[in-house]
Amino acid sequence: MSSAHTSIELRSDNSAGVAPEILEAMVEANVGSAMAYGGDQLTARLTALVRDVFEHPEATVYPVGSGTAANALALSAMTPPWGAVLCHETAHIMQNEAGATSMFSAGAIMRGLGGEDFMVDADLLSEDLELFGWNDPHHSQPSVLSLTIPSDYGTVTPPKEVARLTDVARRWGLKTHVDGARFANAVAALGCAPADLTWRSGVDMLSFGAIKNGGASCDAIVCFDPELSEPLMYRLKRAGHVASKMRFQSAQLIRYLTDGLWLDLAGRSNAAMKVIAEGLGELGFDVINRPDVNIVFVRAAEDRIAAMEEAGLVFYRIAPGVFRFVTSFQTSIDDAHEVVRRLRTL
Amino acid sequence: MSSAHTSIELRSDNSAGVAPEILEAMVEANVGSAMAYGGDQLTARLTALVRDVFEHPEATVYPVGSGTAANALALSAMTPPWGAVLCHETAHIMQNEAGATSMFSAGAIMRGLGGEDFMVDADLLSEDLELFGWNDPHHSQPSVLSLTIPSDYGTVTPPKEVARLTDVARRWGLKTHVDGARFANAVAALGCAPADLTWRSGVDMLSFGAIKNGGASCDAIVCFDPELSEPLMYRLKRAGHVASKMRFQSAQLIRYLTDGLWLDLAGRSNAAMKVIAEGLGELGFDVINRPDVNIVFVRAAEDRIAAMEEAGLVFYRIAPGVFRFVTSFQTSIDDAHEVVRRLRTL
Amino acid sequence: MSSAHTSIELRSDNSAGVAPEILEAMVEANVGSAMAYGGDQLTARLTALVRDVFEHPEATVYPVGSGTAANALALSAMTPPWGAVLCHETAHIMQNEAGATSMFSAGAIMRGLGGEDFMVDADLLSEDLELFGWNDPHHSQPSVLSLTIPSDYGTVTPPKEVARLTDVARRWGLKTHVDGARFANAVAALGCAPADLTWRSGVDMLSFGAIKNGGASCDAIVCFDPELSEPLMYRLKRAGHVASKMRFQSAQLIRYLTDGLWLDLAGRSNAAMKVIAEGLGELGFDVINRPDVNIVFVRAAEDRIAAMEEAGLVFYRIAPGVFRFVTSFQTSIDDAHEVVRRLRTL
Amino acid sequence: MSSAHTSIELRSDNSAGVAPEILEAMVEANVGSAMAYGGDQLTARLTALVRDVFEHPEATVYPVGSGTAANALALSAMTPPWGAVLCHETAHIMQNEAGATSMFSAGAIMRGLGGEDFMVDADLLSEDLELFGWNDPHHSQPSVLSLTIPSDYGTVTPPKEVARLTDVARRWGLKTHVDGARFANAVAALGCAPADLTWRSGVDMLSFGAIKNGGASCDAIVCFDPELSEPLMYRLKRAGHVASKMRFQSAQLIRYLTDGLWLDLAGRSNAAMKVIAEGLGELGFDVINRPDVNIVFVRAAEDRIAAMEEAGLVFYRIAPGVFRFVTSFQTSIDDAHEVVRRLRTL
Repeated sequence: MSSAHTSIELRSDNSAGVAPEILEAMVEANVGSAMAYGGDQLTARLTALVRDVFEHPEATVYPVGSGTAANALALSAMTPPWGAVLCHETAHIMQNEAGATSMFSAGAIMRGLGGEDFMVDADLLSEDLELFGWNDPHHSQPSVLSLTIPSDYGTVTPPKEVARLTDVARRWGLKTHVDGARFANAVAALGCAPADLTWRSGVDMLSFGAIKNGGASCDAIVCFDPELSEPLMYRLKRAGHVASKMRFQSAQLIRYLTDGLWLDLAGRSNAAMKVIAEGLGELGFDVINRPDVNIVFVRAAEDRIAAMEEAGLVFYRIAPGVFRFVTSFQTSIDDAHEVVRRLRTL
Repeated sequence: MSSAHTSIELRSDNSAGVAPEILEAMVEANVGSAMAYGGDQLTARLTALVRDVFEHPEATVYPVGSGTAANALALSAMTPPWGAVLCHETAHIMQNEAGATSMFSAGAIMRGLGGEDFMVDADLLSEDLELFGWNDPHHSQPSVLSLTIPSDYGTVTPPKEVARLTDVARRWGLKTHVDGARFANAVAALGCAPADLTWRSGVDMLSFGAIKNGGASCDAIVCFDPELSEPLMYRLKRAGHVASKMRFQSAQLIRYLTDGLWLDLAGRSNAAMKVIAEGLGELGFDVINRPDVNIVFVRAAEDRIAAMEEAGLVFYRIAPGVFRFVTSFQTSIDDAHEVVRRLRTL
Repeated sequence: MSSAHTSIELRSDNSAGVAPEILEAMVEANVGSAMAYGGDQLTARLTALVRDVFEHPEATVYPVGSGTAANALALSAMTPPWGAVLCHETAHIMQNEAGATSMFSAGAIMRGLGGEDFMVDADLLSEDLELFGWNDPHHSQPSVLSLTIPSDYGTVTPPKEVARLTDVARRWGLKTHVDGARFANAVAALGCAPADLTWRSGVDMLSFGAIKNGGASCDAIVCFDPELSEPLMYRLKRAGHVASKMRFQSAQLIRYLTDGLWLDLAGRSNAAMKVIAEGLGELGFDVINRPDVNIVFVRAAEDRIAAMEEAGLVFYRIAPGVFRFVTSFQTSIDDAHEVVRRLRTL
Repeated sequence: MSSAHTSIELRSDNSAGVAPEILEAMVEANVGSAMAYGGDQLTARLTALVRDVFEHPEATVYPVGSGTAANALALSAMTPPWGAVLCHETAHIMQNEAGATSMFSAGAIMRGLGGEDFMVDADLLSEDLELFGWNDPHHSQPSVLSLTIPSDYGTVTPPKEVARLTDVARRWGLKTHVDGARFANAVAALGCAPADLTWRSGVDMLSFGAIKNGGASCDAIVCFDPELSEPLMYRLKRAGHVASKMRFQSAQLIRYLTDGLWLDLAGRSNAAMKVIAEGLGELGFDVINRPDVNIVFVRAAEDRIAAMEEAGLVFYRIAPGVFRFVTSFQTSIDDAHEVVRRLRTL
């Protein structure tokens, strides 16, 4: 347990280490030789496992090296170059990927929509699409709806709302993508089936994050539409995202998805955040977001924030007077209580 | 030792596993938390180590997920979109990366040059540049010379020839890139300093391969020109090639470069190939290339090739009547002798 | 003069014809043969004339086929692929060019800023740049400020304000571009020197429109920074915007800029709009914008709009209850009075 | 008629002027106002005319500002980004457009094939496609066959051979494009129907040149496949190749295609070249190409070439000891005889 003198990591789930089970799986995969570029048996096993976990017999899975790669490559396969990807105005793909999707898609744009709690609002989406100048080449044509689940502000769109959103999207010919950099945290928080949050609610492609939740070097694209899937092989190759020794990527994801490890890891970070968020509330902090998963944004006086830093809490300041805590699978419940204890003594 | 009934892997060094030392280094890196995206101490250590190994105080290193990523991103930072990358007509960047460099550079083209033994010829290069239509916007302007060392056909350009080539390039304003997917094999074969084969011979940027030689998921770009280096950070991010938990990528490369492991591993595959190549020669096979490192291309009658397959040799056919053997750090000298023994009994 | 039964064109200055002087100049240019691709004497003469009109001895001019080409190619020469072009949220480059700049720049994004009267606000710009996450590769780095003068809503930023804006931009390392699709209308309305509205106020590159104001097939990029100018030749060629018989493009622009024709033509459309705008005001219409040049946006009841259409006014509806009038050099003062007369009789 | 002291223009058909009929048509089009961006009646008329001339009821036509635009935009609509455009190794799209197609297609590559007389050989094409590594993402997948008719070296592929080539292409799933920068010269030389040289022989899209043959500022894409046609509207807009006052572009093409003007103009340049080529032959010059249309390449001693220049012939040197003559619609038969006369007196 951390004492007042030990630092407690709350910067990012990217700052955490790797789940030991996953490194072990890599070591175990190191037997004999195998076909390169995904022609190996572990990668075949991964596909079978993904189909099982997502209850979809035609789902395909493409291991990639980062969430940005998953998002930008998935989206580039879903939009023409003259398309517009509609997303919440705070979406990671719009604010934090430096134009990756515009590059890979050869010019598609991101268009930000409003919506409370950092999630796209189905009514605003519907209105936007109704007023849009369709078939006018002056305007990038809406082609994809991208939902961040959970959002970068830790809020989770439930399956029912996802279905409402994809319904609007489909009516206007848009495909739907989910940026699931923290997908496990959303599924763990909702207690739903992975299928409910994706294809069963109309989602065509998923950026399936693993790295933030205990993975080492591998996220994935999971595709529920065989027609969209085929060209991905070429897009990924040209992007340098087809690992030659792919079995060591697949091994990570196999272990991640086996015996519910992914939901167990996500459950830990969610639980730690729950303790912290309740503490913040009790202590009268001004919490900005609804901390559905493992992220909380808080407004506080600058001197109070500085005192927190002195108390050994390691976190990011987002803007003047605003800070963020992120828990990971490595944040224990004890750590969480210790965070609250230190906040209380400020 | 392999018996006639065991298969011997000769398809590709990508089919090999990971050097146990490297997986161990990943496990050892899994301590505590660390700053994401390369702000960690292991990545800082990697930079220091690269500067030491390459004897260059300003070299920078960017871990990436594949050789294609290293090549295409490095080249895109060296050429304007209207540039032409000159390379041997058999170069990997031209024949095997599906237009990756054209995509990342927004339209630069690869232009293949001749040259014996699958290596660019300095005189042909010089002549080509002299006759070129400079400053005429109809023609993609030569901007980079890219040398594959060793070539995809296993031939190695020595430092002196590299210097001659970069000298011609520099005279016409071209930068020089080395595709070193098997760089360790070249350095091991030559017994030269890494600096001799790169910046000391006028090379500006290097795609430094590790995966084919015992790495797991990480190659790198090594840049010797600070001015070219800075924008790489942005290019890599947009390509999804900035690993969030970069310390687990850096850990691989640190171990690879420590205690000469990289040259030791490469030395093993080179040595195994030496045994095999001598055997092929003695047995009267028609060897196409000069097997300087761990690759040999051979012409043979179709029934003879089929017999080799039946004898448990696992390798790729390249064209009708042509096959290829590639050894890896996992190919023991015993394996190599066993290959020759089986060839002899055909 | 138009009777109540004749239709009066108010849709767009793009709907107008070509100034007869300009077609005549094309006919006069049709003498003998000439070097292709801009090596002709008329194109040389155009450069000299542009330097004279803009009072800048090093200005360069590149004729192109459209305003979108001028904007997207100019901007692609000013921003790295990981850059962000800051502009007003209503800017044409952001709303009406279908991602052209993102395509030509290989992934740069447009970022919309607020500001009254459809013009970027210098204070908001300054604040935005101060709070920006510089050097963080997650975010497209601000690289260019693009001002639309006049804005698509007919408002004109005066030289003094342009200077304030470029001053902020330069402080943060941004270049400044002006989208001058209706540049002549702005200069005519302000009565300033073209230099005052461009380089003398810190502008680096200008999209110089001519087509909307009586030209036939030729707009231009005017560049005030020799360093930015050189690569444009290659960018334009690759975009198919280097006319082979360029003398017939240059001839249009030469005539346009000779004897003040461009300002005369723009003066006519501005004057016609002045009459109409005053009429709209007197008649109690709800005018949305400040009609500094030849465009007015008006809110009105749907039945009133329908009655205007029946009265022979030809114009575009922009949104439910909103319409737009645009005058051109072909809209006479008599036409303008006739428009007001018909509005009065509704 | 030209005297020994007058210069005779033989540099390029791009150096010629505009056919007076075409400028006149622009002047005649300058009546009243019209809908912008191709919504005008002249552009509708152009479509009807193209369907008539090409005998294809669904053909569509897109006016663009240059041949490079026509080629690169047409091809970008026919290939995925991971495609390879197969063409003759001397093709304009590969040698003279500075990577335009690679840019607009987001990374497709040009792959040059051999073939006598500067034309793709159907047997070599067939062999290439049979040996190709299909479905292997390492290799840009052949997606389009592009034929240059006539070739840049003035040779014409007849309809029967075009049909043989497209037949091979179709068998492997490739579309076929014709770069017809000098299409009129080919049709005039062959005396065939335009349909025979295009869709009736299996061609899907045509870059239809007019500028080199008397046009002012407008070439076109003609598309015979409705499915390929639709996205062109967006591609062209984003490239800045949708003229706002399109009626003045369409007017040029309408006049060009009316009363056989296009074939009449091309017939003149072909006829003048015939006279010159016969003269070159009689005088023992070493003619490199088969001058089917209006271009001839000749090898000659340097001092002889210099003497020709002194004799007032204006032409381009292509390489040491090689020059090129190009005739245009403005080269009269008298001019041609005068050229021969001067050559004789060297």
